[in-house]
Amino acid sequence: MGSYNEMWQKLNMDLQKHDILCAALPDSFGEIYMTQKNRPDNMNYFNYALAEVHGARIEEIQKSKKNGKKVVGTFCVFVPDEVILAADAVGVGLCSGSQFWVEDGEKVLPRNICPLVKAFMGAKVSRTCPYFQLTDMIVGETTCDAKKKAYEILEEYMPVHVMELPQMKREKDFQEWQDEIKLFIKKIEEFTGNKITVEKLKNSIDLVNKKRRALKRLYDLRKHTPSPISGLDALLVSQVAFVDDPIRFTEKTEELCDELDERIKTMKPNGRKRIMITGTPMSVPNWKIHHIIEGLNAEIVVEETCTGTRYFEKEVFDEGDTIDDLVRNIAERYMNINCACFTPNNDRIDDIIKYAEEYNADGVIYCNLSFCHTYAIEYGKLEKALKENNIPLINIETDYSEEDVGQIRTRVEAFLEMI
Amino acid sequence: MGSYNEMWQKLNMDLQKHDILCAALPDSFGEIYMTQKNRPDNMNYFNYALAEVHGARIEEIQKSKKNGKKVVGTFCVFVPDEVILAADAVGVGLCSGSQFWVEDGEKVLPRNICPLVKAFMGAKVSRTCPYFQLTDMIVGETTCDAKKKAYEILEEYMPVHVMELPQMKREKDFQEWQDEIKLFIKKIEEFTGNKITVEKLKNSIDLVNKKRRALKRLYDLRKHTPSPISGLDALLVSQVAFVDDPIRFTEKTEELCDELDERIKTMKPNGRKRIMITGTPMSVPNWKIHHIIEGLNAEIVVEETCTGTRYFEKEVFDEGDTIDDLVRNIAERYMNINCACFTPNNDRIDDIIKYAEEYNADGVIYCNLSFCHTYAIEYGKLEKALKENNIPLINIETDYSEEDVGQIRTRVEAFLEMI
Repeated sequence: MGSYNEMWQKLNMDLQKHDILCAALPDSFGEIYMTQKNRPDNMNYFNYALAEVHGARIEEIQKSKKNGKKVVGTFCVFVPDEVILAADAVGVGLCSGSQFWVEDGEKVLPRNICPLVKAFMGAKVSRTCPYFQLTDMIVGETTCDAKKKAYEILEEYMPVHVMELPQMKREKDFQEWQDEIKLFIKKIEEFTGNKITVEKLKNSIDLVNKKRRALKRLYDLRKHTPSPISGLDALLVSQVAFVDDPIRFTEKTEELCDELDERIKTMKPNGRKRIMITGTPMSVPNWKIHHIIEGLNAEIVVEETCTGTRYFEKEVFDEGDTIDDLVRNIAERYMNINCACFTPNNDRIDDIIKYAEEYNADGVIYCNLSFCHTYAIEYGKLEKALKENNIPLINIETDYSEEDVGQIRTRVEAFLEMI
Repeated sequence: MGSYNEMWQKLNMDLQKHDILCAALPDSFGEIYMTQKNRPDNMNYFNYALAEVHGARIEEIQKSKKNGKKVVGTFCVFVPDEVILAADAVGVGLCSGSQFWVEDGEKVLPRNICPLVKAFMGAKVSRTCPYFQLTDMIVGETTCDAKKKAYEILEEYMPVHVMELPQMKREKDFQEWQDEIKLFIKKIEEFTGNKITVEKLKNSIDLVNKKRRALKRLYDLRKHTPSPISGLDALLVSQVAFVDDPIRFTEKTEELCDELDERIKTMKPNGRKRIMITGTPMSVPNWKIHHIIEGLNAEIVVEETCTGTRYFEKEVFDEGDTIDDLVRNIAERYMNINCACFTPNNDRIDDIIKYAEEYNADGVIYCNLSFCHTYAIEYGKLEKALKENNIPLINIETDYSEEDVGQIRTRVEAFLEMI
C-alpha cells in the first residue's frame, strides 16, 4: 500500500491505531493467500484490490465525493444496490470482518453478540476504517436483533437510515417490502439531491445484474472437478465485490473467468474433497475457515452465504415502464434471498440440497458466527434434511479470534476422513 | 397439590420427570415465599393458585375443553388476549421460567440462546408442562430472533400460528399490525369455529381492561412508602395473571387491593431502599432476582417488564361500531408497548424515568436474561439517560441457574449501599 497518511488524516482517522491494522494485514494476506500454488494470473487484480482496499480505492471514492457524489455504506445484501447507484451514489459494504475491531465494539455493545456486529461498531468507534469515515449515510436493515439495535448506537456517530425487512414472505410482506424500497428511494433522493428516474433505475438494474452474472459465471466454473480456483480466491473475489467499482469489478471477474475457462480444459482430478460452506457472511479479512479447510485435503467449491450465492443468485427483471414496476421487480429478487431472518426459511434448505448436487459437494460445513441466533437455530432443520438426503454435514460455530483454530482443524480433518 | 396423576397421564405427560418438578417447586416456593413476614391475607389465593398451577387449574381448563373450548397458548404480551377470549377460547401463558426445562430445550436448540426460549421448548419436548399438553394451538410472534426461529421447531410438535410484529412504530407499521390482528382473527375463527362479533370483541376488551385495571391498582398501591406488598408477592400476582381465569383473577386482585388500601393507612417508613426492576420477563417460577434483592435491605416497588407494567399499562379503547374499529383500538394499545424489539424504542426510557419518579425509586436494576440481544444492547442508551437524570442503575445479566446467586447478591448489596 502506498502512503495515504494525509488522506487518512483528513478523514479524521486514528492513524496510530490504523497503522497497527495496516501492518498486520499484509502478513496475514501473504501467509494465507500468496502461499497458494498455481493461482490464476487474473487474481493479481484482486490481490491489488485487497492491498489497496484502504488506499487507492479510498482515494478513488474521495475523488467521486469531490465531484459531488454521496457515499452510502451498507452491511447487508438486502439493501438494494440498484437504488444507491440510480441515485448516482457510491455504495460500499463496510468493514466488519476483523478481530481487530471487536475490542472497540465491545466498548459500546455487549460482549455476547456476533463478532460481525461488534466489529463494524468498533471500526466506527475507533476511527480505523476509511470507508466508515467517508460514508455519508449508513443504510441498515432489521435482519437480526443485534444489527437492528446496534444501528441505534451507530446513529449517535453518523446518519443512519434503517429499512424494515419483513420477517415472512407472504404476499403482504412482499407489498411491505416494496413500500420500504420506495421509502428508501425517497430518502436517498432527498439525501443526494438526485431524482431516480425509470431510465436511471433500469441502467443500475442492468449494471448490477451484469455484476451478478459475472459472479454466477465464476461459481459455475467451480462446479468443474477439480475447481479451477480455490475457495480462498473465490471468497476474495466476493469480498472485493462489496467495495469495488461495480463496472471494473465485473470486467475483472469476467477476465478471471476467461482464464478459468481455459484452465478447466487441462485440469485433472486431484482427489481433494469438495466442500460446500453454508451459514453467516465472511467479510474481509475473515478468511479463517477457508484457510483451515483448504490447508487440509479439501477445496471449497461453493458458499451458500451472503458473501456467496445469496449475493448474486437471481437477477432483477429489467422490464417495466414505471418506478413502481421496477420496484416490484427489485423487491421480488431481494425477497427471494433465503436468509435465516425469515420464518419459515425452508427454501434455503432446498437451495443447499440443490447446490450439493450441482457443485458435486462431498460434504457441507455449516459455519456460524457465534451468537447468531437465526442461523444457529436453523441448523437443526437443515441437519435433518441433509441426513435424509445422505449429505454429510458438520456444524462449526466460531468468531474472529484465532483461539479455536486448532480445534476446528481437528474437527474438519475428522470430517474429511469420514466423508 | 392434590393427586392428578390420571389427568396428567391422559395429557400424555412424562409423569416420572414431572414428579421431579412437582417435588422441587413446593420447597422452593416455601423457602422464598412462605418465609416472608406479614404478608397480606389475600395472598392466600395466589399461593393456592401457584400450588395448583399444574393441578386444579388444569382440571378446570380440561373441563372447558370438554365443553368445546379450544386452548390457545402464548409466550408474549403482544398476542392480544381480547381476540382469544372473543373466540370463546381459553388463553394461557405457557411454561418458560424454570431451569428444570433448559436441559431438554438444549436438545433441540443451541445452548447460547436465552433460557426462557430454551425452557419453553424443553417443557414441550419433555412433556412436563400440562399447559403445553392441553394447548390446541400456540400463537407466537416475531419479537426476537430466538423465539421467531424456535417456533419453527415447536411447529414439529404442535400447531403454531405466528404473528408478525412490525419492528418499527411508523404509521405503516401500525397498519401492518392491524392487518396481522385481522389475520389472527380469521385464523382463530377457523380454528375454534366461533365467529368473532363486534359484541363479543367489545365484551372481551372490557374484560381484559378490567384485569389490567386491577393490576394497575395493585401497582399504584406500591407507590406508597413503604409498599404494602413485597415485590415477590406482586410478581406472583402478575405470574398468576398469565394462567388464571381472567374474571376470577380480577376479583381476587381487587380483593387484595382492598386489603392493601387498609394496610397503607397504618404503615410506617421502614428505611428499605425502593428498587425498580427493568428488563426481560420473569415467568413462573423465576423468582431469583426478587428473592436476592428482597433478602437484602430493599423492596421492589415496580417492574418495567412484560411480567410487570408492559402487561397492563394502557387500556384498549372500547368504542367502535365495527370489527375494523375495534381492531384499530387493539392495535393501538399493543403497538404502544415499549418492547426492545422495536427500533427505536426511546419511549421505554421515558417510561422508566417516569416510573422512577412516580414510584419514588431509589435505584433501577436492569435484569436481562442471558443472550437477549435487544434488551442487552438497549442498556447503553438507558444508562446514559438515567445518568443525566441522576437515577442510579446497575446491569445484571443472568439465566435460571443458581450459580451466580452469590455474585449477584454481592453486587446488589454494594449497589444498595451506594444509593
